[in-house]
Amino acid sequence: MDEQVRKDYEEYEKQGRIWGNFDKEGIKKIKFERPDRRIIKELIKLDDLTCTISDVLDSMGINGAIPASYISPIIPGKKLVGPAITLRSIPERKTPTQGYLDKDFIRMATRDVYYLAEPGDVFVSDYNGDLEVSNLGGQSCTVAKSCGLIGSVCNGAVRDIPAIMKMDFPVWSCGRTPKTGKFRLAAIEINGPVTLWKVTVLPGDLIVADDSGVCVIPIDKVEQVFEKVKSILAEEANMREMIEKKVPIAELKPHYRKRYK
Amino acid sequence: MDEQVRKDYEEYEKQGRIWGNFDKEGIKKIKFERPDRRIIKELIKLDDLTCTISDVLDSMGINGAIPASYISPIIPGKKLVGPAITLRSIPERKTPTQGYLDKDFIRMATRDVYYLAEPGDVFVSDYNGDLEVSNLGGQSCTVAKSCGLIGSVCNGAVRDIPAIMKMDFPVWSCGRTPKTGKFRLAAIEINGPVTLWKVTVLPGDLIVADDSGVCVIPIDKVEQVFEKVKSILAEEANMREMIEKKVPIAELKPHYRKRYK
Amino acid sequence: MDEQVRKDYEEYEKQGRIWGNFDKEGIKKIKFERPDRRIIKELIKLDDLTCTISDVLDSMGINGAIPASYISPIIPGKKLVGPAITLRSIPERKTPTQGYLDKDFIRMATRDVYYLAEPGDVFVSDYNGDLEVSNLGGQSCTVAKSCGLIGSVCNGAVRDIPAIMKMDFPVWSCGRTPKTGKFRLAAIEINGPVTLWKVTVLPGDLIVADDSGVCVIPIDKVEQVFEKVKSILAEEANMREMIEKKVPIAELKPHYRKRYK
Amino acid sequence: MDEQVRKDYEEYEKQGRIWGNFDKEGIKKIKFERPDRRIIKELIKLDDLTCTISDVLDSMGINGAIPASYISPIIPGKKLVGPAITLRSIPERKTPTQGYLDKDFIRMATRDVYYLAEPGDVFVSDYNGDLEVSNLGGQSCTVAKSCGLIGSVCNGAVRDIPAIMKMDFPVWSCGRTPKTGKFRLAAIEINGPVTLWKVTVLPGDLIVADDSGVCVIPIDKVEQVFEKVKSILAEEANMREMIEKKVPIAELKPHYRKRYK
Amino acid sequence: MDEQVRKDYEEYEKQGRIWGNFDKEGIKKIKFERPDRRIIKELIKLDDLTCTISDVLDSMGINGAIPASYISPIIPGKKLVGPAITLRSIPERKTPTQGYLDKDFIRMATRDVYYLAEPGDVFVSDYNGDLEVSNLGGQSCTVAKSCGLIGSVCNGAVRDIPAIMKMDFPVWSCGRTPKTGKFRLAAIEINGPVTLWKVTVLPGDLIVADDSGVCVIPIDKVEQVFEKVKSILAEEANMREMIEKKVPIAELKPHYRKRYK
Amino acid sequence: MDEQVRKDYEEYEKQGRIWGNFDKEGIKKIKFERPDRRIIKELIKLDDLTCTISDVLDSMGINGAIPASYISPIIPGKKLVGPAITLRSIPERKTPTQGYLDKDFIRMATRDVYYLAEPGDVFVSDYNGDLEVSNLGGQSCTVAKSCGLIGSVCNGAVRDIPAIMKMDFPVWSCGRTPKTGKFRLAAIEINGPVTLWKVTVLPGDLIVADDSGVCVIPIDKVEQVFEKVKSILAEEANMREMIEKKVPIAELKPHYRKRYK
Repeated sequence: MDEQVRKDYEEYEKQGRIWGNFDKEGIKKIKFERPDRRIIKELIKLDDLTCTISDVLDSMGINGAIPASYISPIIPGKKLVGPAITLRSIPERKTPTQGYLDKDFIRMATRDVYYLAEPGDVFVSDYNGDLEVSNLGGQSCTVAKSCGLIGSVCNGAVRDIPAIMKMDFPVWSCGRTPKTGKFRLAAIEINGPVTLWKVTVLPGDLIVADDSGVCVIPIDKVEQVFEKVKSILAEEANMREMIEKKVPIAELKPHYRKRYK
Repeated sequence: MDEQVRKDYEEYEKQGRIWGNFDKEGIKKIKFERPDRRIIKELIKLDDLTCTISDVLDSMGINGAIPASYISPIIPGKKLVGPAITLRSIPERKTPTQGYLDKDFIRMATRDVYYLAEPGDVFVSDYNGDLEVSNLGGQSCTVAKSCGLIGSVCNGAVRDIPAIMKMDFPVWSCGRTPKTGKFRLAAIEINGPVTLWKVTVLPGDLIVADDSGVCVIPIDKVEQVFEKVKSILAEEANMREMIEKKVPIAELKPHYRKRYK
Repeated sequence: MDEQVRKDYEEYEKQGRIWGNFDKEGIKKIKFERPDRRIIKELIKLDDLTCTISDVLDSMGINGAIPASYISPIIPGKKLVGPAITLRSIPERKTPTQGYLDKDFIRMATRDVYYLAEPGDVFVSDYNGDLEVSNLGGQSCTVAKSCGLIGSVCNGAVRDIPAIMKMDFPVWSCGRTPKTGKFRLAAIEINGPVTLWKVTVLPGDLIVADDSGVCVIPIDKVEQVFEKVKSILAEEANMREMIEKKVPIAELKPHYRKRYK
Repeated sequence: MDEQVRKDYEEYEKQGRIWGNFDKEGIKKIKFERPDRRIIKELIKLDDLTCTISDVLDSMGINGAIPASYISPIIPGKKLVGPAITLRSIPERKTPTQGYLDKDFIRMATRDVYYLAEPGDVFVSDYNGDLEVSNLGGQSCTVAKSCGLIGSVCNGAVRDIPAIMKMDFPVWSCGRTPKTGKFRLAAIEINGPVTLWKVTVLPGDLIVADDSGVCVIPIDKVEQVFEKVKSILAEEANMREMIEKKVPIAELKPHYRKRYK
Repeated sequence: MDEQVRKDYEEYEKQGRIWGNFDKEGIKKIKFERPDRRIIKELIKLDDLTCTISDVLDSMGINGAIPASYISPIIPGKKLVGPAITLRSIPERKTPTQGYLDKDFIRMATRDVYYLAEPGDVFVSDYNGDLEVSNLGGQSCTVAKSCGLIGSVCNGAVRDIPAIMKMDFPVWSCGRTPKTGKFRLAAIEINGPVTLWKVTVLPGDLIVADDSGVCVIPIDKVEQVFEKVKSILAEEANMREMIEKKVPIAELKPHYRKRYK
Repeated sequence: MDEQVRKDYEEYEKQGRIWGNFDKEGIKKIKFERPDRRIIKELIKLDDLTCTISDVLDSMGINGAIPASYISPIIPGKKLVGPAITLRSIPERKTPTQGYLDKDFIRMATRDVYYLAEPGDVFVSDYNGDLEVSNLGGQSCTVAKSCGLIGSVCNGAVRDIPAIMKMDFPVWSCGRTPKTGKFRLAAIEINGPVTLWKVTVLPGDLIVADDSGVCVIPIDKVEQVFEKVKSILAEEANMREMIEKKVPIAELKPHYRKRYK
């Protein structure tokens, strides 16, 4: 455990934010930089965010967009913008039946992560894209919400869909299942690097999600991406207006695809 | 044909409940035990049923939960609890075009099953998880409803989605298709053992389904599962309340994961 | 370029309907026969259209139905009937990053197709069933709508899902994504033959789509299919009524499956 | 249990061919018709058998060919022609761990089938195309061989690949695995109808397999198929010779595709 | 039909190289530029060709490598280097049974392509990655070989695997099947652009294939790629020698990854 | 970095076993316990190892077997027994083209792992089961071999298949590809926990692989597994002999399935 993390850990312990079941060596970061809140507030107002951001990431040579074909929203019509806190899990070595029999301690750790989060954070859980085992369910989302988290993106499945719908808590996932992660998966690392589909996420990266999919903006690029998004959207609004007025092709053409030049 | 089934068949024939097109040797059971209706009435009131039941099945070493990643509801937000009646189908040997040409008799048998059902039953149709060929459509659901069936779970595809939506009839399936099963599949067995994804269903088993997926409770375990479900839900409600009040971790912790000990 | 196409091209150019970026050698047809509008108007009134049409195509030995398991609606509950205009695209040879760097000209061509369309047409885009790269997005749909197109079916992914929902523009696709087709795909042929899942579409074919999937009726069969659809639906309505009245099996049976004889 | 099967069962019991663990109600047939051995002997001499037979089945409107893309040989270069004996299995209700704990009786039944077989038979095992759980392994193949079986085709996985290779016993399967079927699958029916990929197999059907895949010839069509195969092969040999001599197109063309006219 | 193609067509017709069944409008090119034979001869001598070329394409921002995970060799251990001639096919509109009944003309066209080829060419066939329907079989390969073709790469399945093995003709494909393409697919374009997995191929492009997969080098880049390949291989041989001698890390390191700087 | 690891690192640095490019914080272990070599020597002599070990793991409630359906051998007929050393990689944030342009440092680390290995170790590389990007190739295997490694198992793809074949170095993988991992994946952790398909591997675990798949034996269970393997094999040899002699069922039956009681 890194010296800084150890100090943060002690501080959080005093604040009652440490559950204490998760092996502290697996916590990679507790306090870390997050993107400017002002930018987050501006971004969440915009429409078709993931597409615009995907275009900007393309222009920067960054691999950061995830199709909803692979990770899709539980509640259609939601959008989400916030910094990532991360959890990585691996399969348990015992079968679930053996785990039950041995009364093993459960090794899921969503609660442990939530208590380390800041309001406005997005929980990113990586269990390898598995479609069968749940990463989190309704009660976990209740805790998440109570800790100020605003949503979740899972590289894996989730459960308690009716509860999640009822709570109106925005979750993106690879699949849906009734099967608990208890005795099936073991949390192994908090706030380390994880993967969503084929995209890397580090804690503090800005997660943007809507019905088209999910984008991951590396924290050091958030400012630059935001500037580009603004200029694109202005141009697009202008363009849309021209289309709706049905101006002739000759007039439309110079605007069309302008940003790619 | 078993002696008991033969007698039941004659009785049902007199009652006008035998269509008579399906080879009677393929009927494995007509009358069979069903779970206690009182339990069904209690279960259907509960929320996030499949997840709670999946946990109970886990604790009993039973393989009975099916992710919505594989078999999902046509109408979101529905729940379903009822005993299974089953139908297994296999591919026709002729191509559909050849079947048409030869004016073959159609070998689907959903109607034959519905007329053998009791009110409150759930129709479980197994066609191997095929995503292309329909097991049932709107008209079949109209018949099902008229016979008192309350829903259907298909290890395969279904069609007439708009009609099913309009009827508000709860159906879970692997896929959606316009392609009829006529001249594509042949019903082979009524009320024999079938498979949903990787889970076995016997007639009389209790089917529980919602947006997270489907659970199959073997009939001889229904009582035991029900008792466990009740105790879990009481504890969970208590827990949720504590979370919402944001009581300190020290207070929450002894409750959390209690049931697994 | 065919002589007739060349003449049509010049005519459309004068009318301001040629964008002029797409290589004209790739345009296979400009003016072409479309199905009788009267039939389209009758068909769109009917329910569960794709299933009925799939049955008729089966009876004619035509391979024309596509399960919603593979190509599904972005907006549930929509239906669509109209002649196809087509676009085929292939992967760009450069990576998107290299394309950006070289400031290559974008080679998507949805706009070029829309301006060649007639009101009531359906845009059919074929990019090989790819789940990652977008064939069209919100702005493209805005143009489509302004040109009188009534919907789109993509053998590939689409983006700007929130915008498409908001516009209420009916689109069927294999997937959803934030990733643009710009610098990823190159339009190669307009109004040539394309593939949707495992079904061929020619320009002018009648596209019918709903929540069960998509059907493609070859233009020279539209009349014949329509006649058969009408007779089936009359019989089915009659049948549904009998089921709802719960008439005895003996009375139902002669009607049931009548059309297959 | 059918009267005939009961008599056959008693006869086989006296001959020491009944293991006695498998529920006799699940045995659908013991003695049944098999294709003419003379035809089998002729067919096995031929090359590229599955392709020629697939063509003949196409010409008869029969759905009987299975791509090696889905069910492929464990040992490349083998060919197999023989009548099917069948076994269908479904998932166990308990998890494997629970089954072990409860010292449940194992419910696999390959041995039970082998002892009912005739020399020259092909064992067809259906476990739903599962890629993870073994239907049979090396020891099972040793028993099969000792009973005169000549090969096996599995709609599922097999294990002990090195032993199967060493024994040089021809097996086709969907996958390979170390995981036993014991406590995972339960045999449910012997010599009933089963499915290989999307093709139905009945006991006595002629199974033909090679590196291109597997064909299933319904027993009542074997004679007819054989006659057609012979005439095709004669023509093809003739054609191949002309190609090798590079005779002009004008001379080749009338032969080419002749059989389809 | 382009003027140049028309002239070439007449010339080839006189040479007896036109089968005449394929619609001539679908032929995009007859004579076209091919890569320098000297380069081909050098390349075929090298080992692990696709990997080295994939690295060079990466360095040029070209999307040209196809994993053997998707398109793999029928005969392991083969390598192939030659210019592409291409064929694109789409699904037949009729079912195969209907096609047989109507005695339709077969619309496959591999022979038509082979007769337009030059010795040393590689046949590239695109049928959308379908795993079930054959693009070519043993007899087609016999014709190919007699026309001087040296191998084939199919975005789809092939058949007559035993014959292909016996002829020792190198073929790469997505799958293996006994099912003919006759009455299933229709050839639509010769020597137009096609797709292999997610990579575009134009006629004349250099195809390179081995057990790791397939690479497509755009014809105008062949020279440049070749120069880079040579310099990499020299360095790698040097490196391998150092590894085998186990020289210390300090000595190895400056060489390692040198080419990426 | 853990204190013990820091010390080991310094020691290995002096021995010239540290490449020095990989961030040392990502090294979780350098020296760690390995299974008894005597057991390894005994195990490698046995046949059908993965199947027998899978049975033993089943009997212990351990989830440790991986079907060859998912991770299969590059060279058929090989077997492998040795302790795991592990590497986990995640996707690069930049596209490969951008990485080249920026002349980024390569972040693969197979060499770094090999130099930390002991003779007889098995390299286990986890890149999420990706089928497109290579984890290692021929040159990497040359280094591995020179460091005494005896084989490799990849949760991902590998390349330079011809070189691997020629070296006769045993590798198991999910796929084959020409595409380098350079600029595509970044090594993130050495000798931490990784996943193979759905099974966890820790450094020092015993990896056993053959044509049926791969098994992972947790290091603390190796002794116990070995004892059970021995007793099973003795019984099986006995059984096989009885089968070959065709002793009557009555005699066979008490032996059959004995171990499961």
